[in-house]
Amino acid sequence: MVNGTITLPKGFLAAGLGCGIKNSRKADLAMLVCPAGAKAVGMFTTNKIVSPAVIVSRRHCKSAKVYAVIANSGNANACTGKRGHKNAVEMCAATAKSLNKKELLQSECEPENILVASTGIIGKQLPIQKIQNGIKNLTEKISDTKKAGTDFAKAILTTDTKTKQAVRRVKISGKKVTIAAALKGAGMIAPNMATTLSFFTTDVKISKPLLRAAFKDAVGASLNRLTVDCHQSTNDTAIVLSSGAAGNKNIKSKSSAYRKFRKELCELCDELVKQIALDAEGATRMFKVVIKGAATKADAGKAARAIADYPLVKCAVNGGDPNWGRIICAAGSAGVKLKPDKLACKLDNITVFKNGKPVNFSNAKASRIVSRKEHQITVTLGAGRYSDYCYGCDLSREYVRINADYHT
Amino acid sequence: MVNGTITLPKGFLAAGLGCGIKNSRKADLAMLVCPAGAKAVGMFTTNKIVSPAVIVSRRHCKSAKVYAVIANSGNANACTGKRGHKNAVEMCAATAKSLNKKELLQSECEPENILVASTGIIGKQLPIQKIQNGIKNLTEKISDTKKAGTDFAKAILTTDTKTKQAVRRVKISGKKVTIAAALKGAGMIAPNMATTLSFFTTDVKISKPLLRAAFKDAVGASLNRLTVDCHQSTNDTAIVLSSGAAGNKNIKSKSSAYRKFRKELCELCDELVKQIALDAEGATRMFKVVIKGAATKADAGKAARAIADYPLVKCAVNGGDPNWGRIICAAGSAGVKLKPDKLACKLDNITVFKNGKPVNFSNAKASRIVSRKEHQITVTLGAGRYSDYCYGCDLSREYVRINADYHT
Repeated sequence: MVNGTITLPKGFLAAGLGCGIKNSRKADLAMLVCPAGAKAVGMFTTNKIVSPAVIVSRRHCKSAKVYAVIANSGNANACTGKRGHKNAVEMCAATAKSLNKKELLQSECEPENILVASTGIIGKQLPIQKIQNGIKNLTEKISDTKKAGTDFAKAILTTDTKTKQAVRRVKISGKKVTIAAALKGAGMIAPNMATTLSFFTTDVKISKPLLRAAFKDAVGASLNRLTVDCHQSTNDTAIVLSSGAAGNKNIKSKSSAYRKFRKELCELCDELVKQIALDAEGATRMFKVVIKGAATKADAGKAARAIADYPLVKCAVNGGDPNWGRIICAAGSAGVKLKPDKLACKLDNITVFKNGKPVNFSNAKASRIVSRKEHQITVTLGAGRYSDYCYGCDLSREYVRINADYHT
Repeated sequence: MVNGTITLPKGFLAAGLGCGIKNSRKADLAMLVCPAGAKAVGMFTTNKIVSPAVIVSRRHCKSAKVYAVIANSGNANACTGKRGHKNAVEMCAATAKSLNKKELLQSECEPENILVASTGIIGKQLPIQKIQNGIKNLTEKISDTKKAGTDFAKAILTTDTKTKQAVRRVKISGKKVTIAAALKGAGMIAPNMATTLSFFTTDVKISKPLLRAAFKDAVGASLNRLTVDCHQSTNDTAIVLSSGAAGNKNIKSKSSAYRKFRKELCELCDELVKQIALDAEGATRMFKVVIKGAATKADAGKAARAIADYPLVKCAVNGGDPNWGRIICAAGSAGVKLKPDKLACKLDNITVFKNGKPVNFSNAKASRIVSRKEHQITVTLGAGRYSDYCYGCDLSREYVRINADYHT
């Protein structure tokens, strides 16, 4: 584990502050800058209703160079019509203008070189003047210190109780390559994309198609397999920026250097998904559902998701109850092929159901497993040879409290 | 509203008692008898894992005459392998034997003339000896009193807090026709089939295909459109028995008499679905989601279901919060066609979102609507001309308490 924030990879500056979007006066505006210009790859929500921030960033990701990301919490800028779109564009324009004025960048930038992300309440217009002022202040503050990275990580949070950050280091062609990330989790989290907002920085030198390939794999295997509450939001965004400043030999093929980088990125994402799951709204513990013996890969994924999303399974985990009946019921209800008399279920290494029949097991031992911070539910469908998995967390009274007592 | 129970239609006897399946000594075994033999139609869960009770009753429904239904609560007899199947068959055999011995029926019956249903915990073997004794005692007790019907209704409950019964009367070809029902609700409820166990009796004289058609329509429009917690169980069963004792002219075509009967049955089901929703585990209020302007009927149903199942919408309803942002987010996440700039949302008669933009409305008034026992969420997708609907209920801390603290 490396100690650091998204400013640790070479070539990145960050800042975060409260500009008054949140009534609480908590930090709500964050800026990430790559003065030399970065290669950027973004992955976004597949919700049909998207924030203009998503529309704008999807387009701006196509720019050869991205110089900065401007992100706010406290307001999702979603379902806000034309004015919302204008505000998203203005956030990019104001950032470009402020950075150009500061003469921080290697060359002048356009609004198209800036990405934007928003998270928070749906259906309210952004207080754009406050944000414009905030952008000016952020431009004064940005730095490459560890604190600056943490300030960024704080300013993107909503109901998260802690910042979510991780850093990895790996040697590639003799050079030290660093990958870092800051993200927010909390609620409205489901594949694809269980990320809400996540920002990755790296100094690796790599071609954009390969950066995209590695990022897609890493997010696909981790963030896109976490479900907290069934639905992806209107704003989910995952962005990786590579400055190329590590000085490694440019990665241009799926070489061993590529695989090394990809592996680190995957492990980083895996660490992050656990941070999100364990800090999901009201969550006290998480679990991984592994499906084996499915007729197709799609069936395996569908069954894993059905179990991880099933309120009764989530409540049982909350209560530390090895209630395999609910797991089997969810699998049967998922609409996938299975052989009832070949069905099996394991909680970590304890078999609780086999060949379609209950098995004697120590209830105390199984309860202890389900009460752990993390455990694995393995279900064998007996219908084929495909596997897949999904992450989930428990459903608590606290989840209901947060989301019932919260008022628009 | 007619006062009565499932024994009110002519030709039915019932009973209920506690035989010791539940540790609480509460009623857990119920019997419904039609001495003259009834036409029976059943609708069952589409879960791939089903209780042997479902397998057996599916088969026995094909008998020309059904003389009785034997049902237990406290144990679902699901995931119980061959022994579970043997026990389900034995419940029918013991009932047939006991009724034949009592000489209650117009003619001797076979196990194939008996239907069986179970509900409760998954994965435990039935205490078959206790049930055999219980069946003998039920045979002694059965009667056509109102109390006998209520005893039946009590004995099929699980975590329900009250019995669920309803009766309707209608005149057909000059004769008084009665339809009655007793059912259980609580948890593990979702289309199809949001019924867990439900039993309908009627004295209408009608052909079996038309009884099936009317029942399918009525259940399809009501019970199969209620979602409490996403998943249908392994045991869901809806059965209608018609004794034909009302003396009306036999309904053999989709005549006005048929339409009259069908309408009453639909209204009865609609009343029952509300009883289930309002007594669902932890539920304090219910809502109907109506989708308009969908590209296809399937899209309309899918979007309605996505909204009704979305934990964040259910929590908002629990808190009396007119949080339309979560409704729109759920619609966008449902994977259906929609036009973002034509999207609209109403809470009862208050428009809260129109043409993809927020609308000014009285938050106090909207809160009052969402805080009612029942309200309607209408979402217009702007993608076509199809509509559909779905019923849901709120998600409360109490739901989590019931399902987390309950231990296997």
